[in-house]
This record gives sequence, structure tokens and C-alpha cells, in this order.
Amino acid sequence: MSSEFGRIIRVSIFGQSHGEAIGAVIDGLPAGEKIDLERIDAFMARRAPGGAGATQRREKDQVRIVSGLVDGYTCGAPLCGIIENTDAKSADYKAMADIPRPMHADYPAHVRHKGYNDVRGGGHFSARLTAPLCFAGAVCQQLLEKQGIYLGGHLLSAGDVQDTPFDPMNEDPAVLAPLTQRVPPVMDAQAAEKMLAAIDLARSAGDSIGGSVELCVLGLPTGLGEPPFDGVENRLSQALYAVPAIKCIEFGAGCAVSRMRGSEHNDPYVLQDDRIRTASNRHGGILGGLTTGMPLLLTCHFKPTPSIAQEQKSVSLSQMQEATLAVRGRHDPCVALRAVPCVEAAAAIALYDLYLEAKAHGY
Amino acid sequence: MSSEFGRIIRVSIFGQSHGEAIGAVIDGLPAGEKIDLERIDAFMARRAPGGAGATQRREKDQVRIVSGLVDGYTCGAPLCGIIENTDAKSADYKAMADIPRPMHADYPAHVRHKGYNDVRGGGHFSARLTAPLCFAGAVCQQLLEKQGIYLGGHLLSAGDVQDTPFDPMNEDPAVLAPLTQRVPPVMDAQAAEKMLAAIDLARSAGDSIGGSVELCVLGLPTGLGEPPFDGVENRLSQALYAVPAIKCIEFGAGCAVSRMRGSEHNDPYVLQDDRIRTASNRHGGILGGLTTGMPLLLTCHFKPTPSIAQEQKSVSLSQMQEATLAVRGRHDPCVALRAVPCVEAAAAIALYDLYLEAKAHGY
Amino acid sequence: MSSEFGRIIRVSIFGQSHGEAIGAVIDGLPAGEKIDLERIDAFMARRAPGGAGATQRREKDQVRIVSGLVDGYTCGAPLCGIIENTDAKSADYKAMADIPRPMHADYPAHVRHKGYNDVRGGGHFSARLTAPLCFAGAVCQQLLEKQGIYLGGHLLSAGDVQDTPFDPMNEDPAVLAPLTQRVPPVMDAQAAEKMLAAIDLARSAGDSIGGSVELCVLGLPTGLGEPPFDGVENRLSQALYAVPAIKCIEFGAGCAVSRMRGSEHNDPYVLQDDRIRTASNRHGGILGGLTTGMPLLLTCHFKPTPSIAQEQKSVSLSQMQEATLAVRGRHDPCVALRAVPCVEAAAAIALYDLYLEAKAHGY
Amino acid sequence: MSSEFGRIIRVSIFGQSHGEAIGAVIDGLPAGEKIDLERIDAFMARRAPGGAGATQRREKDQVRIVSGLVDGYTCGAPLCGIIENTDAKSADYKAMADIPRPMHADYPAHVRHKGYNDVRGGGHFSARLTAPLCFAGAVCQQLLEKQGIYLGGHLLSAGDVQDTPFDPMNEDPAVLAPLTQRVPPVMDAQAAEKMLAAIDLARSAGDSIGGSVELCVLGLPTGLGEPPFDGVENRLSQALYAVPAIKCIEFGAGCAVSRMRGSEHNDPYVLQDDRIRTASNRHGGILGGLTTGMPLLLTCHFKPTPSIAQEQKSVSLSQMQEATLAVRGRHDPCVALRAVPCVEAAAAIALYDLYLEAKAHGY
Repeated sequence: MSSEFGRIIRVSIFGQSHGEAIGAVIDGLPAGEKIDLERIDAFMARRAPGGAGATQRREKDQVRIVSGLVDGYTCGAPLCGIIENTDAKSADYKAMADIPRPMHADYPAHVRHKGYNDVRGGGHFSARLTAPLCFAGAVCQQLLEKQGIYLGGHLLSAGDVQDTPFDPMNEDPAVLAPLTQRVPPVMDAQAAEKMLAAIDLARSAGDSIGGSVELCVLGLPTGLGEPPFDGVENRLSQALYAVPAIKCIEFGAGCAVSRMRGSEHNDPYVLQDDRIRTASNRHGGILGGLTTGMPLLLTCHFKPTPSIAQEQKSVSLSQMQEATLAVRGRHDPCVALRAVPCVEAAAAIALYDLYLEAKAHGY
Repeated sequence: MSSEFGRIIRVSIFGQSHGEAIGAVIDGLPAGEKIDLERIDAFMARRAPGGAGATQRREKDQVRIVSGLVDGYTCGAPLCGIIENTDAKSADYKAMADIPRPMHADYPAHVRHKGYNDVRGGGHFSARLTAPLCFAGAVCQQLLEKQGIYLGGHLLSAGDVQDTPFDPMNEDPAVLAPLTQRVPPVMDAQAAEKMLAAIDLARSAGDSIGGSVELCVLGLPTGLGEPPFDGVENRLSQALYAVPAIKCIEFGAGCAVSRMRGSEHNDPYVLQDDRIRTASNRHGGILGGLTTGMPLLLTCHFKPTPSIAQEQKSVSLSQMQEATLAVRGRHDPCVALRAVPCVEAAAAIALYDLYLEAKAHGY
Repeated sequence: MSSEFGRIIRVSIFGQSHGEAIGAVIDGLPAGEKIDLERIDAFMARRAPGGAGATQRREKDQVRIVSGLVDGYTCGAPLCGIIENTDAKSADYKAMADIPRPMHADYPAHVRHKGYNDVRGGGHFSARLTAPLCFAGAVCQQLLEKQGIYLGGHLLSAGDVQDTPFDPMNEDPAVLAPLTQRVPPVMDAQAAEKMLAAIDLARSAGDSIGGSVELCVLGLPTGLGEPPFDGVENRLSQALYAVPAIKCIEFGAGCAVSRMRGSEHNDPYVLQDDRIRTASNRHGGILGGLTTGMPLLLTCHFKPTPSIAQEQKSVSLSQMQEATLAVRGRHDPCVALRAVPCVEAAAAIALYDLYLEAKAHGY
Repeated sequence: MSSEFGRIIRVSIFGQSHGEAIGAVIDGLPAGEKIDLERIDAFMARRAPGGAGATQRREKDQVRIVSGLVDGYTCGAPLCGIIENTDAKSADYKAMADIPRPMHADYPAHVRHKGYNDVRGGGHFSARLTAPLCFAGAVCQQLLEKQGIYLGGHLLSAGDVQDTPFDPMNEDPAVLAPLTQRVPPVMDAQAAEKMLAAIDLARSAGDSIGGSVELCVLGLPTGLGEPPFDGVENRLSQALYAVPAIKCIEFGAGCAVSRMRGSEHNDPYVLQDDRIRTASNRHGGILGGLTTGMPLLLTCHFKPTPSIAQEQKSVSLSQMQEATLAVRGRHDPCVALRAVPCVEAAAAIALYDLYLEAKAHGY
């Protein structure tokens, strides 16, 4: 496994769902940056289980920062945050050691790790590992904001219910802040209600639903990114796929571009208050792997939670014969719901790293 | 810019569209591997300009291998292949230095590189740089095949015209080979005709169209990938976005997953000839960032060629006033058409690197 | 700062001397490897303060492994070990914030980190950070031994007192084991006594002495190493300079080679029991950046402990005027004494990483 | 093999001694930097064979820059320089395929690469590969000079003959320039004569001698370096060991430190024209892995050229029986002689990379 990300900052994630503790080390942060710990807690709380529509596992997810900070300022040494696992119930997962849950990492992890992988709660593959990801992302998000770069997301869809998408021309960060206060983080209050209803319906049917998260980043300078292999899409994708259950990321107009004509897709350049902007924003703020200075927009599509209470077919690894399985345990029926801060976190890490890297190249 | 990719092998791409030469260095290849140079030439020819529906720029794209091979076998030293640029016509691009082409890297590259970027033909941002990518990919593809891993792609759509998609349960590599012989590389002959017609129509209208490329990889062992940050999707995305004009990559059922229920999305495990398989393949051969052993399927959505003959609005950088631009020069009206081998190449590099990395971890 | 090392395994060190905790994350370990925790404790104990001739700071240095192990076997997830700091006395160090200690990192760290570095006990620059290094090294040492690769060191000199050097032709690991039991780890008992006497003499004079550590690695296969930039010397040096106070590393005959003739330096090849060996071993087991299969030998030269009780000249950073300083606190008068396991640890990490990397390249 | 170096810039070296061409790609350079090509040629000429005391192989070593420069300025794309091999005489080396030369990489390379390594002239292990290293270093040296950082070296010793060492307190770059004009690059003219005589004597005896190169770097800002794993010594060592035949690198007072007392080794801080300096410079400009702003001094010890005309014992790999060998071909009897620019080049690459990296971390 490869649990590290970044070139200038290097985020290293450790822990298993039902192990003793999980955490993250952030190496390479500039010294002298004030870190607001309350905001980190608030960020973590958005991801934490227990909210409406979410799993009933309860973890405080209190991060204990054991290094890297002196009197609230980064000191240049690696910042390490540790979260103790206090509410792990491993009994739920015993059968998994033998009968892999469909659509989970269980089976390929069993093969890859020769049967030694930690099956309890999915081990290091668990969505619980997004907690330290959120910790690292919350730090990076603060540091981006000091540079005037704001990012935020919302649940764009849950099953068939759609929220209002971001206005791709709106550059006002005020649109982002309220979403962090809402459960679920949705713009349209009616859509929110319908989403929760759809999630409850799925839960009561022993089923689950997919969903999508839209992310918006404002205030990016023009020219961040290191194409061709470390352009903005490359790096964002590399970071975002650390969030489990994503099967597709759309940048700008996304998959619709393949059905467009150039004359309808192209965003012309215009002058606006002596700044060069595009008159429309189908490109989603990225061209040639570089930021254009326009709002960066992407959408992550999450598959429905694979763990469902309905009986499913699988195979007994010890007996090599077919078997059935009904996944017990506490699961979010819609993983996308709590994934909004995770998407923000992964993107914040990737973008802050690119921001620092551009400085190294004389930008 | 960051023109290197890979952990075990490291592919380094160099050159600009209208510079003296372009090329690639592949560091870290195992020694003693026979490389079939004719197959490399054949691979390069698939990407080369001049075919039906493609740009009229003519480059032989003959790769001169100057290191890394002795008597046709890799010797453990870096393999370097160089392609001379022989048909560059820079005069076409003079205006670009001042008026950035909409939807190209011109403007953000100008800002990032403080006006020193090579504007001729898009410089290092040009799709011409997919030639050395294809060289490196052709090498990796051969080495994957020695391990029984086959990959191939087709033009799944051009504008509104759709080709038949791959059967996600078919594990027979015989489905892939014929596609390499076809121009365009399409399964359904009628669709191919309609695609070429749509491309010609766009060209004659001074316009362009988008398209999509579907990739299939067969014979992958179960358990490749280094999640969470270097799982199969992470690495494939990082490599694939080096191919210009991709705005979205779908893995397995792709963006459709966000509208599915778990009970309809989940692929159950079954036994087939004593092997563990899934009865369906919506997961596209990847779970938890690891290969499952089922066919790996992904689709890349390409935007319409941004260079169109129609007049477009832009801005003069020197005068900081609005201007218009009609892009001259030789351009493919549908970049997706020649992108099929590029997608194969990027994926082959990423997968071969993951294959070797798994061996390092004792797999 | 850059606190990570390795390509296949990636060791990430965190913590400051007087922070809450220190530790290490080891990413990329193969799954299914049994880890002997008692041997790790024994390894840590060799580095721990409190022995003859060493600092009087007492830390148990008990490592708490919070992830990566299930029932004593590696599970493929990152292995994280945490050591709480329980006996930090920061009051000793207050003056340092203003008057940098000569020959320490204080002053350049102050400049680099703009005054935000953690000055307590040297922060992340402290030799205390060799504790997590030893933890990571102890793990790698065990895994190397499973491959028949043994490494061990001894205090070759303290001030003017010399121990007997290793016999460079001896391939029997039995020579290494007894050294781990001795305090100080010295071959010649009389030399050991004289060394302790020299250290005590320096301490009582408010002074310190330098020393050197010789390392021997046995059982290495022929051909490990990734030259030119990641050959055995490159990687060992990169890892070893993480141990504070080293100013020179000699491989094989070391600095003496520059005064030799080829005819006296060259080691001829011979056949021994059908194995190719060299008849002498001035090359120290490395040629062209690759292991030759002969014993690998290197010597690290440690400077005298910079913290001495004698009054020294320095500068007040706040007043920008010259000042004097007598370093109080608990310090080893000869850092080389406790550095033997640190040298072993750094080397074990580098060599195990190269061992795994060779497998990736088909070795 | 691993032929890449650097985090911000990434230098990739390719080619074999007797292959078609050798070269280097430098990725990650800032755009807009003027490169003086004549100075690069002059730098290359210092390394080129044919001077007094050196091999009689004649290569012009003309670098053809095929990418990365537009009108003499870096354009942000990778800079690739290619050197054609025009005077390779492979016949000299035929026996090597079977009888490995003592003290060369031949035997471990044969094992590692399973007999597929390029034996002609040592292949990728050859000192000829320092030509592209010098190209890359010459570029970095220019870019360092724009920042007021100057580096230069001299042949400190050849066999028993010593040159005057650098004055470790002298900060005037004027001391460095004349050395680049001298053959050999030696401060003391009498020593130069004696060195050439010693080299000639060795050659006529069919023997060779070792030597050492001292490097001085002036004008470094305080605080460069990324300890613990990427401090100045770590990175310099990693880069320098790419130069063949180095067996030891001493920083500052070097191996002598292990025999010193703290009170005699420590360099006190003083104020000089309102700058903080050390009153002496035994630390060689590096403390805690960071530059102190004092002159950086290091010495590389080179082994005697392993290729000697005298008959040596070795082993026939095909017959697995002992054999003898007298190495023919054109060889420098003292590799250190032409190594001065190579040491400068490797150091320039490492230091420029650290310089850029510090900027990324907000320095």
C-alpha cells in the first residue's frame, strides 16, 4: 500500500478501522503558520459519524497533535495528529475473514496481502481512514485561505435527487461558507429533505444509494499545476481517489464534453476590470493542466454503499464454495453524504502542495 | 512542469511541438527483456498524423533508440528514444504569442512561465508530446503482454455517434487485436463511417467535435495497486491526464453509479472453473484501489479540439484589449480519434509500474 | 524539513525532543511478516539513555505500535510506532532561544524557520529523534535477517582510543551478536575500559570527545543497489546522515584510497567453493554502487558532542551582540557511544529498501 | 538502476559508454532563465578527455540541446542535452564480457542484470556518463551564480602529492575562477607539476594512483537543507556518489573530528559587520543538515583507477575458473584528475535543487 501523498508537503496516513489509533503526519509544512485548532475540530465534526442519514458508529474523532506545533504555530517539523479508536466493534466483521463482501476491497486485499490483511472493518481500506485525511486537509485548507484560496463542496445528488449546482462564474467565497453549517451540506433546502428521505428509504429497504459531490475552489492564481504528469487534474485525481467509493471525477463540463462541438464548448477570453477572464466556464478553471484563475469545479461520483443488509452472493475463501452474506454493522446508506469534507480535504492537500511547488519553480 | 511518471520505472518526456526533437527516457526497466522494435513502430504509426479524419501534418515519428538496448534486449540502463521534429511550421502560430487561443494552455502557460513558454505549436503542452508517451507505452505494453496482460482501446464515441462498448465480462484478448488495424479504431463498421462523416462535417464547418475512448485491460492478476494514494484509479488517472483534452475518466459503471442503488450496482462473487469471479462487472475490475482480476474498463472523455477555424473572442496580452482569433494550422477536428493509442500508452505505463511495484512488496 | 526516506518502504519520522510524543510510520512493508516485539524493545534499549558513559536523561522509549500489525504479523497497512516523551525538562533550554549553541543546528534552524523552530532540546533536530529511527531500523533489521542478511556495528574509536576493526574477510555473523550485549559495544575489552575512562575524563573537564562507529553487513546478495543516483553508497549516506553529528562516512578502505596505487588497492577475484569472491576486501563490499556479495564495511566519524559545560562564545539573536554560553542539561560527552544502534538502524532501512527495490526490477 | 536525481528539478541521465548517444534531461527548471551556452561548453571541456595526464580517448562532447530553450532562455519545459558517442572503440572490451575487471562494476552488474548489462566500456556504469552529469551541473552552476552562490574545486591530492587546501574562512569567489583555467586544476603550481609526474610514473608502470578533490561553495544563504533525510550532507552525498570511484566524502574537518575534543572542534559565533559568522570553520558550512552561511567545504576521496595494464587475477564467468586479465584500452591513470568538474556538477545539481526547495517551504 502507498499511504503517502505530495511532493513539497508529504501527507502520510496510518491506521486501520478497528486498530488502536489512526492518524496522519504532514511533513514539509512551512514554519510560522498559525493553525486554528477549533476550525480543525469543526472540520472533523462535519465528517464524523452520527449526523442525520449517517452511520450510528460514534467516534469523537478528537485529534491529538503530538508534534509540529509550538504555541499554535507550525515549527517546521512534521505535524502529527493521532485519533484513538474508541468505539470499534470488531465482532460484527468476523465472517468477512472468510466471505468477502461484494464490491469491497476484501477479496483483492486478501489476495494481495496473502490473507494477512486486517479484515476488521475493512482495515486500512476503511472509510474511517478519511478521518486523518480530513485532519490533514483541514490544515491545508486553512493555509490555502491565507493565500485567498477558498474551497467548499456540497452533496450535488443522492440517488435521483439533485441539488442546485454551483454557478461556475460566481467568484464570491460567501457561497461556500453556509454549506459547512448544513446537514446534509446541500444548497437547496427542499432537495436536502428529499435526499434524507431517499437515504432513509434505502436504509429501511436494506439497500443503499449512490451520490455525487461537487467541489468549488475560488481565488486560485493563474498557472498552478505541473503538467503533463502532475497537472491539476492529475494531482487532484491522485488525491481524490484516496476517498473510497469514487468511480468517476468530472472536471468542468465533465463527460458532457465528448458530445459537444468546439464552437459550443470553447470559453472565449474577455477583459473584466482589467483582468483576463473567460466569458463562460465550461473548462472548470483548468486548461493544459494549469489553473486559469476561474473557479475550479469538479464533481465526484460515489457508488452506493456496498454494505447492504440484503442477502448477497459471495464465496467462502476457506471452502472455495459459493456462499451468501448479509452485511451487518453500522453503515451509511449513502457514502456521498459524509464525503463532502473528505473531497474538500483531498483537494486541499493536492492544491496546497501545488501552490508550494509553484513557488519552488520561481512562480 | 513535471514530465516524469512512475515509481519503479520512471518515464521522462521531453521536447516541444516545434523544437528540434522530442523523446522519452524510461529508467528502471528490468534487464534482459527482448523489445520488438517493429511492434513499437506499428504502435507509433497508429498515433501518427495523416490518417483518415486526422491532421495533415506529416511526421514519420521514427524513434531512434540511443541507449538502454543491446542486441535488442534491455540492458538495465535507461532506455532513451528520440524523435526528430522534421515538419514543424512555426509561422502558423505567430499570433498566438500575443492572443491566447481559447481553451488551450496558452494563457495560463504564459502567466506561469512569465512569457517565456514556447508558444510554437503549444510547445511542451502540445498533443505532439503524446508521441514519446506512445513510445514509452509501447515498450510497457510489450512487457505487460509477457505477463499475460493485454490492453486495447477503441473510439467509443465521436460527437453523437456511439460505437458498441466492450463486453465487460469478455476475457478473450482476441477482441482487442483487430482494433489496432482499423482506422478509425472502432468495433462497429457502420459507426466508424458515421464518425468519419461527423468529423468531416465539423471540419468543413470550421468546427470540431468531442469524443470518448474506452480502454479494456485483460489478464490482470488480482491485487495490483497501492491504495489509498497510489491505487489503480489514482495512478491511471495521474498517467492518463498527461494525454491532452481529457476532462473526465469513468471507471467501471462510471458516473452512472451515483444514481444506482447498492442492490443493483453490487457485483456478486461466484466460482467459475475454481476461480473467484464476479457475476457482473460494474466495478470495472477495480475495488478498493486494487485489481480484482476481472476485465479493467475505463472511459476517457475528450473535449472537442479547441483549435477551430471559426472566429473566436480572445484578448491581446500586449495591448490588454479584446481581440478576435481564427486558429489556422493543421488540426484534428476530433482529438479523440488519434487518442486511442495514447490512452493505451498512458495506461500501460501506469499498470506496468504497478505490476513491478507489487513484486517489490512481496507479491 | 524532509523526514521521509525510502522508495519501496517509506519511513516517516515525527516529533520533537520535548514535544508530546515522537514516532515513525513505515509505509510499504510486505504483508505477512512476523515482527518480534521483544527484539525491537531490546534494540531500542541499546540506544536508550542511562547506560555507562551516557546522558542521565531517562526515557523508557517504550514503542506503542498503533497500526500495521495484526496478531504480530504485518498486515500491509503502514506500521506506526509512537513513543511518549515523559522526561523532558525544557527549563534547561530557555537561553537557547536567544543564544544559539555553537556547532548545533540552533542558528541555521532559527534563520530557516524564521524563529518558529522548536528550540526545546533541539526540537526535531535532536538526537532524541534517533529513537523512532531505531524503531524503524529494528523492524527492517529483522526482515533483512529473514533473508540471511545480518548487520551490526561497534564503537571503533572514542577520542584517541581504538577498538579492533572488523576482519573484512570474515563472513560469519557470529562476530556481530555479542556486540549487542556489551556496554559500550566494543570488541576489545581493554579498549572499552579506556574509552569509558576517556569519556569520563572529558565529562569531568566540561568537555567532550569525538568517536567513530564501524558497521559490517554480512550475507548481502550480489547486485543490490540502484546506481548512479541510488547506489548503495548514495542511499546509505542519505540514510546515515539522518543520525546527527556524522561528518564523514568511509566505505571500504575509505579516505586511504586516495593515497593508494591501483596495484595495491585492487581486490582480485578468486573462486572459493564455487563462489566468486575477492581475495581481499578493500572495496568494502560495494563496486559501481552495487553490492558484490563480500562483507559491506563502512565507518562513520562523529564529531565531539557540541554541548559542553565550558563557556563558549556566541551571539544574542535578540540583541545582535556577542554573548557567552555554557550549555547545561544532560548530554552524552561522546555521541558516538550511543550511536552504534542508530547507524545500524539507518543502514538497515536503506538496505531493506534496496533489497525490495531489486525485486521490483526483476532481481 | 536509478538514474534520476532531485525533487524540484529532476535530472535524468541516459546512455552507455559505447552506445549511440548519452545525455541528460533536466525537468522542473524555472522558466525565463538565460543559459550561457559557451560557458556550458567551457565547463564540458574541463571534463573532456585529452588533457595532460588524461585518457587519450577523444570525444568532442558537444552537447546538442534539443528542448527546453527558446532563444537562449529556459521555457519551462524539460531541458534535454544529447551528446553523440563518436569515438567508441568497443573491440578493446571484448574480454570483459567473460572476465570481470577487478574493482569495476562488471561482476555485480553481470549478476544483477543477468548477463544482459552493456559491458562495452562499462556501459551505463562508465565514467563517460559524467559528461551528461557535467552538462546538467553546468546549467545548475549558472543558475546558482545568479543567486550569488559560487562553487569550485581543485585536485587536493594525487597519490602522495598535496595541493594547498582552501582557506575555510575566505569568502571571496575570486579564489575559485582561476582553477577552471588550469590543467590540472591545482592551486600550487609546484604541486601541479609533481602530480603530473606522479601520474606519468604510474602510467608508465602500468599502474594508477588515487587522488582527492576539494570543493568549496561560497555565498550560500543560511538555512538551506531538508534534514533529517534530505539535509545538505544527505543530498550532496546522494548526488556525489554518482561520480564513479569516490569511496569517502569528508564534510568540514571530516574524519579528523572523531579524534577531537569539543572544546577544540567547536566554532564559536561572532559578529562581523553585523552578520553572524563563526570565528573558525571546522564545521564546513553545515550544521544540523542546514547551511550556516559560512563557506561549505568537502573533500571526495577517489580510488586509484581500477583499470591497470598490469596483469591481475580474475575469474572466467563462462568457465567458472580463475583467469588473468590485463586491462587494455584508454584510461586515466588518476580518475580524480578529470573529476574536479564532475564533483562541482553533482554538487551544483544538489544545491540548486535544495535552493529551489527552500523557496517552496516559504524561505
